[in-house]
Amino acid sequence: MSNLFVTTSLHTWEQSIKRATGFFDNCGDEELLQPIVPGKNRVIYLLGHLAAVHDRMFPLLGLGDRLYPHLDDLFITNPDNPEAAYPAVHELRRAWAAVNTGLTEKFRSWSPEEWLQKHTAVSDADFAKEPHRNRLSVVLNRAGHVQYHLGQLVWYKK
Amino acid sequence: MSNLFVTTSLHTWEQSIKRATGFFDNCGDEELLQPIVPGKNRVIYLLGHLAAVHDRMFPLLGLGDRLYPHLDDLFITNPDNPEAAYPAVHELRRAWAAVNTGLTEKFRSWSPEEWLQKHTAVSDADFAKEPHRNRLSVVLNRAGHVQYHLGQLVWYKK
Repeated sequence: MSNLFVTTSLHTWEQSIKRATGFFDNCGDEELLQPIVPGKNRVIYLLGHLAAVHDRMFPLLGLGDRLYPHLDDLFITNPDNPEAAYPAVHELRRAWAAVNTGLTEKFRSWSPEEWLQKHTAVSDADFAKEPHRNRLSVVLNRAGHVQYHLGQLVWYKK
Repeated sequence: MSNLFVTTSLHTWEQSIKRATGFFDNCGDEELLQPIVPGKNRVIYLLGHLAAVHDRMFPLLGLGDRLYPHLDDLFITNPDNPEAAYPAVHELRRAWAAVNTGLTEKFRSWSPEEWLQKHTAVSDADFAKEPHRNRLSVVLNRAGHVQYHLGQLVWYKK
């Protein structure tokens, strides 16, 4: 029965990634440089932001080192800044794809027990009291975070 | 072990509801009548929309009749319309709270097996082939839908 919980949760993650990827793939490079609505983040900022947040999931989930630590300064620590030197759009697209492919492969290989292991940002003592602070909760949370920004991205008018 | 999958999924649902409720509670009645950003939905539309979508979860999850079927026409079938006669704000706030309280009580009472039962919009034949089309998937999907609109709501500037 646990396997069905895994399948369903994994499906939620994969659907969020698919939907966001569809959005970004549908935007030309020039469109990525436009604000979603006047005065708000540019599309490129959310692409970099989501790539950076997902890249951080590797160490958070105990899956080894991250691939693109240099993204944090531009896309997590600081707000969108059209004056700053951003990576090339194709590099960000590649980072987004690579990070999600790597994560999803790992998720598909996890047993139900591995899904319920603690993530690395919770102590053993806290985890003993709050066993829902596990890898599953991180994956569901990040799928929700993608949805959150998708709700904003769909307001972008070409 | 299945119980931990349930606890974690339920937590994801409850966090989404809590966050959206916090947003709406923090908006005065007059603020609800403002567009989130110029040219986009008013806050009240998303309150009614989320209440209506969650109300539809009762029959979808086999939990009996819905409470507020009259909301669909204004908040699902049609887009936001400042000219239309909307229910009073306090009624919508009450509907949002009542629907979520009712749903969450049911979810808390479900066994792991009950979480994995099929929802009513999938046929027996399809469910046999795609067992992830279960109640859990609906609850996770709707939690993601709340996040989607929360991403928009946070752009509302008082």
